[in-house]
Amino acid sequence: MTANSDVFSWWPGLFGPDDLFNPREHFIICPNILGSHYGTSGPLTVNPKTGKPYLHDFPQYTVRDMVQVHHHLAQHLGIEKIWLLIGGSLGGQQALEWSIQEPDRFEHLALIATNARHSPWGIAFNESQRMAIALDPSWATHKPEAGMQGMRAARSMALLSYRHYDTYQDSQQEPTDEKTDGFRAATYQQYQGKKLFQRFNAYSYWHLSKAMDSHHVGRGRGGLQAALQQVKANTLVVGINRDVLFPPDEQYLIASGIPGAVYLEIDSRFGHDGFLIETAAFGKILNRFLHPATVNVES
Amino acid sequence: MTANSDVFSWWPGLFGPDDLFNPREHFIICPNILGSHYGTSGPLTVNPKTGKPYLHDFPQYTVRDMVQVHHHLAQHLGIEKIWLLIGGSLGGQQALEWSIQEPDRFEHLALIATNARHSPWGIAFNESQRMAIALDPSWATHKPEAGMQGMRAARSMALLSYRHYDTYQDSQQEPTDEKTDGFRAATYQQYQGKKLFQRFNAYSYWHLSKAMDSHHVGRGRGGLQAALQQVKANTLVVGINRDVLFPPDEQYLIASGIPGAVYLEIDSRFGHDGFLIETAAFGKILNRFLHPATVNVES
Repeated sequence: MTANSDVFSWWPGLFGPDDLFNPREHFIICPNILGSHYGTSGPLTVNPKTGKPYLHDFPQYTVRDMVQVHHHLAQHLGIEKIWLLIGGSLGGQQALEWSIQEPDRFEHLALIATNARHSPWGIAFNESQRMAIALDPSWATHKPEAGMQGMRAARSMALLSYRHYDTYQDSQQEPTDEKTDGFRAATYQQYQGKKLFQRFNAYSYWHLSKAMDSHHVGRGRGGLQAALQQVKANTLVVGINRDVLFPPDEQYLIASGIPGAVYLEIDSRFGHDGFLIETAAFGKILNRFLHPATVNVES
Repeated sequence: MTANSDVFSWWPGLFGPDDLFNPREHFIICPNILGSHYGTSGPLTVNPKTGKPYLHDFPQYTVRDMVQVHHHLAQHLGIEKIWLLIGGSLGGQQALEWSIQEPDRFEHLALIATNARHSPWGIAFNESQRMAIALDPSWATHKPEAGMQGMRAARSMALLSYRHYDTYQDSQQEPTDEKTDGFRAATYQQYQGKKLFQRFNAYSYWHLSKAMDSHHVGRGRGGLQAALQQVKANTLVVGINRDVLFPPDEQYLIASGIPGAVYLEIDSRFGHDGFLIETAAFGKILNRFLHPATVNVES
């Protein structure tokens, strides 16, 4: 959602010079997403009709629109077939949507910690975050830097949905018994809010969360099951058992709807963020999925 | 946390004219808590030194201070022994703390969906909510109505920690496939924020969350285990399996530390809020705990 197109920087262990997906063996493309802070058209882009940035007037778009941009990029690059389409979370939502829009384009599809339709629970998390952004008195000013303080609180909230109780037990416990205020866990939330503040903008954050809310591969296609059946790629779906935001039931639903799909579940104390962290486990699973071992049957 | 002292209104099914805890058989006292909106001293109370409400200057207090107020109330009413002390969530934190401060006062102790020390996870949720309140431009005005818009967003966040993914699946799903915006789950968050806005104040909300953060029965007592061992009441601890905010491990830890305590776990799709809703289950469990059946051994 807030990542850029430098996949080596944010998915190391899976993508890198010596990882399963390395540029010696693979031609890797990680496109920016529509509306993001990092490229492709977004709310800070200048509207040619007014000569000013779109900001609040950036049109509402959906995951399907993001996929259209990816489609155009592939056409522009002259890429017809894609060996593997992989994504987690919002990236997985796009990957699934694209596999339904163009079933013949993809040989393999790998979906991690994602869903086929964004849940009421996920929408409620996003709405709470937008409430925080809307509270920021600068949000009404229509300036490029509007809503940034609100986004700090929104990010703090979002982080809780990306992690798990156990993540905080492991890393944010107090070393002593004596404090009654100024807790490490509270400071950590402020710190995470500040980190996003320094690298993102509130308009993109707002619109991306709206696009995520809209995600529903069954819309206009006769429902979820009818949509999932259109996927032709060889599909692997991976869930994370402690994922608070995209619980494993959602990945299981995808796998059970796509013909021949394989479902696997991993354990991670990092919750949803495990999709960025448990790369050793994903590497093994993906390697086996993409390069099935020859079975030696001794005679 | 935001409830008042009318326990018949907020814990029906367990407390009421025909419930397990009814005024025919029991003398029931549900005291307000220090710093609340509904009574006892709080941030809106007039500071006798200035003639104006305390507001931001209300001193930071802890769960131990709340318990001191309960102690003084009991002394004032001439109550020496208490047959049953029961509480859930912040109420359970107070009940446990009081049972450690005055082990001889209580015959039975029932703790539901609570903990012995507030978790880093819980503190992070509270901090995110305070970030939302602090965003409200009125929060700096030092008026009694300050921070109320911020509290709406805070409540929306809090609600997610009180519920569970499954709660939203059950009640907030869209009836159709066609929407791309204006989702029921989003409206629901706004509605819940508004409801609290109409009945509470942001200063109390802020201070109560700070008091909750400070909760740690082991502070100054040689740690958690040493503190729990001081409880003399006959103790029942109940956890809710889908409680996101106070997961069952926390209740199990309490029960394993209190001599002779019984631990039970119930299933609820309402998550933490199950402590207010699953009263039929709690009624059965509590009835058996308080009135053990005579065992008939046939000869």
